[in-house]
Formats: sequence, C-alpha cells, structure tokens
Amino acid sequence: MELKLYVDRLSQPSRALLIFCKANGIEFEEVSILLGKLQHRSPEYAEINPMKQVPAIVHGDFKLSESHSILIYLASAFPGVAEHWYPADVHKRAKIHSVLDWHHSNLRRGSLGYHFNTGIALAFGRPLDPKAAAEGEKLLSASLATIESLWLEGDGPFLLGNSQPSIADLALVCEIMQLEVADEKDRDRILGKHKKVLKWIEDTKNATTPYFDEFHSLLPLAKEKLKELKAQASKQ
Amino acid sequence: MELKLYVDRLSQPSRALLIFCKANGIEFEEVSILLGKLQHRSPEYAEINPMKQVPAIVHGDFKLSESHSILIYLASAFPGVAEHWYPADVHKRAKIHSVLDWHHSNLRRGSLGYHFNTGIALAFGRPLDPKAAAEGEKLLSASLATIESLWLEGDGPFLLGNSQPSIADLALVCEIMQLEVADEKDRDRILGKHKKVLKWIEDTKNATTPYFDEFHSLLPLAKEKLKELKAQASKQ
Repeated sequence: MELKLYVDRLSQPSRALLIFCKANGIEFEEVSILLGKLQHRSPEYAEINPMKQVPAIVHGDFKLSESHSILIYLASAFPGVAEHWYPADVHKRAKIHSVLDWHHSNLRRGSLGYHFNTGIALAFGRPLDPKAAAEGEKLLSASLATIESLWLEGDGPFLLGNSQPSIADLALVCEIMQLEVADEKDRDRILGKHKKVLKWIEDTKNATTPYFDEFHSLLPLAKEKLKELKAQASKQ
Repeated sequence: MELKLYVDRLSQPSRALLIFCKANGIEFEEVSILLGKLQHRSPEYAEINPMKQVPAIVHGDFKLSESHSILIYLASAFPGVAEHWYPADVHKRAKIHSVLDWHHSNLRRGSLGYHFNTGIALAFGRPLDPKAAAEGEKLLSASLATIESLWLEGDGPFLLGNSQPSIADLALVCEIMQLEVADEKDRDRILGKHKKVLKWIEDTKNATTPYFDEFHSLLPLAKEKLKELKAQASKQ
C-alpha cells in the first residue's frame, strides 16, 4: 500500500516524519508542499489536509494530519519499526504521549512564535513583531530549561531516561534544530547554556544518521535567505 | 491499585477526566487542587506534577500529567472501558489522536486565551487584556466553525462521524462548556450559530448522564463570582 508524505523540509514536524521513515526503512513518496510558495493553501492540497498545514500523509485511501498522530500511526501500522520508538508497554507509552502533549503548549508554541516573529513573517509579506518574538523566546527558553532539568534527568541519554530514542525525542529535537536558521548570537543565547540538551541533540542525530543531516541540509540556505529578507526590511 | 485524580472541577480537562472515570465505573479518589487558591503551585503538588498544572493522576506508583495522555492511559489500563472511547483499530485511533492534537493548538488555545483575558485573570490579581481576549475569541470561533464543518460532518452524532463518543468528544465538549461562565450575550454570540456543535454537546451530555451535569454544577457559581470581580474591576 503506497505511502505519500506531504511535507516541506523547512518545517520541523515534516523533518521528524522524513527522518523517522528513513531510519525505519519505511518506503514513501515525498510530495513537496512548499510553504513559502503557499502551496499548502491550494484547493488541491485542501483535499489532502483541510487544515492546510504540513505534514500530512495518505496511506492507501487513509488520510491523516498532525505530526504526532502520524508518527504514532506509522509506528503502529508498519511492523518493522523498532519497539523503542513507540513502546507497547502502557506506562512507557503514556509517558511519551505526555511529553508530546506538553510539547504542543510549550516548546512548539514558543519556538513557532519566536521564529515567525524574528524572520519567517517577512517571507509571508508580514512585518516582524518584536513583542511577540520576545514572548516566543521566553516560552522557548523556559521549555528548554524544563527539558534540561526534567525530561532529561534520567539515567539514559534520551527523554524520560530512555537508552534509545522515541518518537518524542525526534519531534522535540527537530523543533529545536530550527534555531539553525537564527543568527548565531541568538542561537547561542537561547541554546548555549543547556548542555544536556546539546548532548541530547547530538545523540538523536547519531541515532538517526545519515538521515538527520540529510533532511536538515536546507537550513543553512534558509538562514541566508532570512538574513537577506531582514536586511531588506531594515532598509525600508 | 489505588487511583488518585488531582483536579479542579473548574478546569475543563479535569472535568473530562472525572466524567470519563464515572461513566466507565473506574473507582478513584478525587483530590481537589484549587487553582483559585494557588494550590497547584505548592511544593507538595510539584511532587505529583512538576508542571504545576491540573489534572494529574497517581495510579499505584505511576504519575502522569496532561489530560489527553491520562484519558488514553485510563482507557488502555482499565479493562472495563467500552471500546468506543478509544478504539483499538489503528485507523480509528489515529483519527482520535489527530483531533486531540488539533485541539491543543486551536480550540483549547483559543478558549484559554478568551476566558483568561475576559475574566479569570482578575481571580489571579491580573488585569484583563482586551486585545488578547479578542485574539482568543477569534481562534475559539474559528475552531468551533472547524468542528461544525469538518469534525462533525459525518453520519453519526459524534466527532469523526462516530455513533458513540470517544475521549476526543469528551475533551472538546468539556472545553466548550467553559462558555457557561461567560456573559449570556457573549456565549450566544460565540456559540449560538453553531447548531451542530450545540446538538453534539447535548448528545455528549446524554451519553454521560448524570455525571456530565454533576461535574459541571459549579459553573453557575463561578459565573456569578466572575461577574462580581468584573464589577469591582470596572469601578477601579
């Protein structure tokens, strides 16, 4: 049964899906839906995902949106996925769900607010909003502190003290990796002090090599593009 | 094995858990953590839930926060829960996850922003913020329109066209019920035009009677209290 992934490699949750499929030998067709070209707002794409967001999947005639739900579905529907990504044990599974729920209202929300209002808004013809950017950074920083002090406090190198990564590690690390498009000084200010988080990013990268780097390879280009947009905006 | 629910009946996700347990014959001890008295910020409660939010549970020596994760855990760990609440079928389950993920960034976020900035802020000694309230109402209204046009478009009376409620119906309906604490004219403006949503609330209530009314019985009192706080604030 054919699996299509509707994704933009510049979108954090899209990258998590791409890396997950590759790392688990799940075959798929990658269908690019470029946010910068507003392809997610086309009537054709609304047939795939009425919410007009990436990522989404079509598996046979089954359509699904929301990246966490998709990761859980893929881990459940494809028999080759290693147990550690989404354990069957009801307690381990519950803890992974809890991290993913927390992610929605904390790391993801802060990160989105920060990146949109410090750069991405310009790509959509919108002005930057320093107050909203500061609010986003505050929540992003608090979320990184929580990951450092709470979710990574166990014995193992991954979230919840696990010895191998789960879908939650991949979802959260891909979100944090978006800081690669920020200015170096901003990235260092926000991320530099969280040593455990930095090590965990490396561990997650190593656990999914070479796919992690492959699907993050566009970020330096996006960073340069955003620098140009910001330079133009500051002249106006 | 003893189950403790740490809840505030004035919190939407807390009510969803309480109703779910009662409707499924799950025995529990209700431990009140009153948000209005800042009991969620005590050092003792941080031992139960370091995120300092309600609801949370302790089941034996297993601790869990995040209401969606808790609902899934209870539906999975207690054998008496009827299949329709959280179906084993991987496709049906994925669709329920997708609605719950969507809820985080849409209905829940809009509803929280609206209620906090039109009244609840006063209970925490904070001023009301009309701009944030308007943004909250906009997202809340858009979310209700999406539920009406998309999630309730199937043949059955419940979300995703189901003939019986799932944990997603309970989570979303309990969130919308918070409009009972708003002024009548505000509630009617926001909710009145969504006829399918209104019928679905009734259907969910009927499917969980008498517990639905039992755990919503404090809302009229909260509404009067908020009216008083708003009257005092407008005099200052």
